[in-house]
Amino acid sequence: MFNDFKLVDDRPVYVQLKDYLKEMIMKGHLLEHQKLPSTRELSKLLSISRNTVLNAYADLEQEGIIYAVKGKGNFVGKVTTLKTPSIELNWKERLNKATLLADELDLIRQDIHWKKGMISFNSVAPEEKLFDVENFKRAFLTRMSMEGDIVLNYGYAKGYKPLIEYLLHYMEIKGVDISNKDILITNGFTEGLDILISSLAKKSGRVLCENPTHHAALKLFRLHGLEIQGIDMQDDGIDIDQVEKSLLEKDFDFAYLIPSYHNPTGIVTSSEKRNAIIQLFSKHQIPIVEDGFNEELRYSGSHLAPLMTFIGAGNSIVYISSFSKILFPGLRVGWILADKQLIHCLESMKRARTIHTSTLDQAVLYQYLQDGYFEKYLKKARSVYKKKYELARQACKQYISFKRMTGDGGLHLFIELEEGINARILLEKCYKKGVVFYPGDVFYTNGGGSNTFRLGFSRLQDEDIVRGIQIIGDTLKNDMGS
Amino acid sequence: MFNDFKLVDDRPVYVQLKDYLKEMIMKGHLLEHQKLPSTRELSKLLSISRNTVLNAYADLEQEGIIYAVKGKGNFVGKVTTLKTPSIELNWKERLNKATLLADELDLIRQDIHWKKGMISFNSVAPEEKLFDVENFKRAFLTRMSMEGDIVLNYGYAKGYKPLIEYLLHYMEIKGVDISNKDILITNGFTEGLDILISSLAKKSGRVLCENPTHHAALKLFRLHGLEIQGIDMQDDGIDIDQVEKSLLEKDFDFAYLIPSYHNPTGIVTSSEKRNAIIQLFSKHQIPIVEDGFNEELRYSGSHLAPLMTFIGAGNSIVYISSFSKILFPGLRVGWILADKQLIHCLESMKRARTIHTSTLDQAVLYQYLQDGYFEKYLKKARSVYKKKYELARQACKQYISFKRMTGDGGLHLFIELEEGINARILLEKCYKKGVVFYPGDVFYTNGGGSNTFRLGFSRLQDEDIVRGIQIIGDTLKNDMGS
Repeated sequence: MFNDFKLVDDRPVYVQLKDYLKEMIMKGHLLEHQKLPSTRELSKLLSISRNTVLNAYADLEQEGIIYAVKGKGNFVGKVTTLKTPSIELNWKERLNKATLLADELDLIRQDIHWKKGMISFNSVAPEEKLFDVENFKRAFLTRMSMEGDIVLNYGYAKGYKPLIEYLLHYMEIKGVDISNKDILITNGFTEGLDILISSLAKKSGRVLCENPTHHAALKLFRLHGLEIQGIDMQDDGIDIDQVEKSLLEKDFDFAYLIPSYHNPTGIVTSSEKRNAIIQLFSKHQIPIVEDGFNEELRYSGSHLAPLMTFIGAGNSIVYISSFSKILFPGLRVGWILADKQLIHCLESMKRARTIHTSTLDQAVLYQYLQDGYFEKYLKKARSVYKKKYELARQACKQYISFKRMTGDGGLHLFIELEEGINARILLEKCYKKGVVFYPGDVFYTNGGGSNTFRLGFSRLQDEDIVRGIQIIGDTLKNDMGS
Repeated sequence: MFNDFKLVDDRPVYVQLKDYLKEMIMKGHLLEHQKLPSTRELSKLLSISRNTVLNAYADLEQEGIIYAVKGKGNFVGKVTTLKTPSIELNWKERLNKATLLADELDLIRQDIHWKKGMISFNSVAPEEKLFDVENFKRAFLTRMSMEGDIVLNYGYAKGYKPLIEYLLHYMEIKGVDISNKDILITNGFTEGLDILISSLAKKSGRVLCENPTHHAALKLFRLHGLEIQGIDMQDDGIDIDQVEKSLLEKDFDFAYLIPSYHNPTGIVTSSEKRNAIIQLFSKHQIPIVEDGFNEELRYSGSHLAPLMTFIGAGNSIVYISSFSKILFPGLRVGWILADKQLIHCLESMKRARTIHTSTLDQAVLYQYLQDGYFEKYLKKARSVYKKKYELARQACKQYISFKRMTGDGGLHLFIELEEGINARILLEKCYKKGVVFYPGDVFYTNGGGSNTFRLGFSRLQDEDIVRGIQIIGDTLKNDMGS
């Protein structure tokens, strides 16, 4: 006993000794009122300083786990380790359908297992080598020295005030009329959408969206039991005639649209179509949830204003976004910009569910934006991604015989193969050659898209982009009988 | 025009100039194809360097907002600012009952407005002056230099692996059998509880809990439409006879218990009672959600093991906790420790709702724990809070004629006045004298507790603790007719 004590990590030795003794006591290896070795004995036995042992014993005594008797030494205190016969519940039986569905819809678990050395087009996360870690550290230190204690204590459910002000102004510069609007900071885009859906009454129980669309949004719609009406995508955005027909036929609680660098197709909705969308939904009094996630990653073409700029002082659009696709996704910061009254109610929901979003994340992000690092970083990121984007487009044109390729910017392209070609079978064959991509069917509302796939290029080296696309193209030509 | 440009903050001048011009264009003050002043003119007009203007113009051009014509200058590009007649939706009508209830139950909005200079016993948040900001900065810099790019990119829904490992070991040292158990990291305790409740099937639709209990938990139970069965608190924990009777009469989906430094009473459940609780709930096959939030703030008495240690390899307890009441609440990090299979399903729910908890928060917290700063800080915090705790207890005994006072540790005391005395009326009177506290009725499951209140002392100066309690006592004696 005692001589099996080992240092297991970098923590101070006295802490590790304390933990070791505590564990022995908790597990019943040392019994109540049992005498512990004297500090001198133990320090000799373990070849550590006597002070270390003294510190560990003092901590254990303070925690009430051992007690000292003057002149006699240290003894194990009363620690209830009595175990009742343990019972086994069947947790699966106790879960509800939505939770089992969440498990079933969890794409990450269905992903083909990626192995080291493979070329993976799965990710649309930013390239971490681009991260501006030094300026991020600077922003952290600046903020901490200004108000470290405030940053580390409880904040407001609505969000960190300077960040809210910054973002309101940021959206105003984009052309949004922010009078009577307000912002709620959320744990990224996804929490924003979830809080909104959780808060809306199910009147028709129906949502209208682009088809295909962002799978995390689709998953939330399904978990909330919404009926999903998907509308086909044309090269300049959603098919407006189909929208009109749907709105005449049925009622909808809201529409969910991604007008810029749409996920997964990468399509940018034209400015004419944006206008038509607003006209149509306004007429039918249907709110639009606008997903602005990728808006900043524009490589060419003229500027396009968010849908929200078109409604002026109106309140029918809920804009949800984050900087996760450009800046730092590890920081979970997103925001909802919407009608003031609506934000007021969503704020209560936010408080009930998660109190507030990490103040640290918000404060450092604010400082980073405020110091102008964002502008600089965006320029760098755009130029790197633009190059990859053009390379990937060119390679697809050269090697893959597709029916349609879309992607006007952003971090991915979307490929539609000829009818009848199954992208999942293609994926299986490519996997054997060390290349993986995202099958497109997961983005479809109605089981379609079996002949489509998404190519995320943001985290790949130039040569891997070309080589990977060539392998996909060759496999398609040679192994798919097409 | 242009000469109303002002520097409004600390960001680089060219960024502010760019934003100013962008806003003018978006708002329609500058029209499509309108010529902008030459860089030389504008630099002279605004008394800024020509380079600054060049940078701003270059950015605007890259964003597609202006275009350059060689030899002719810069012109406003095509920016759609067309406004359709804006519509006004009535959002309140479109929200569901739970959301309106969340708004109604939002205590922060009902709080009596605190004014500067008042003595407020409302908060049970940690004292921020105690925060160990320097070591926190150190932990941040250490982690960032080791893997800054990873910390800033997407992480795992389950949580940051080193932190999970650390916490598993931390709970093992407390005596928990962690075989077949796992951890899910959440945005604080509250998200943990919300995800769990959202995932459980409503079989009986009933929850059993202590009465009074933590109001954020009560709020979640109500928002999820659960029927709440509150059980009276005795000085050594929940009334076990009442529990037995309830379990015989009705079925429950789960029980929610706070065995250590219970909120709001501060009571610590005795080790005999812990044992009896486990026996009883095991017999009836009812899972227990154990709230470990304040467990570390023990000032005296013998060590008490979490309920979870009593079930051995069993899986009937879901332990949810965070370090928010001791370390840094601004970091939203909590965890659920439970059956492996259950965690697996909750993880899918977590991913669907918020992707994952801030990696930055998790990684810095991990480093802080790993470097042994937590142990040191805990010692300091305990000794400061212990002093305040003893002072507050002493002052209550001296000045307030209560029926019962509870609080075995932690950051607050709970006072029960004689029957018939309304704590909210007392609060109104004390408010006029500059003292506020938390009325106890908000913690009650059944509309009771009108004669109770909670005194949080963690953020008050010693003299304010005594003076505030004296004012409450005097008001009670002189102005309440008792």
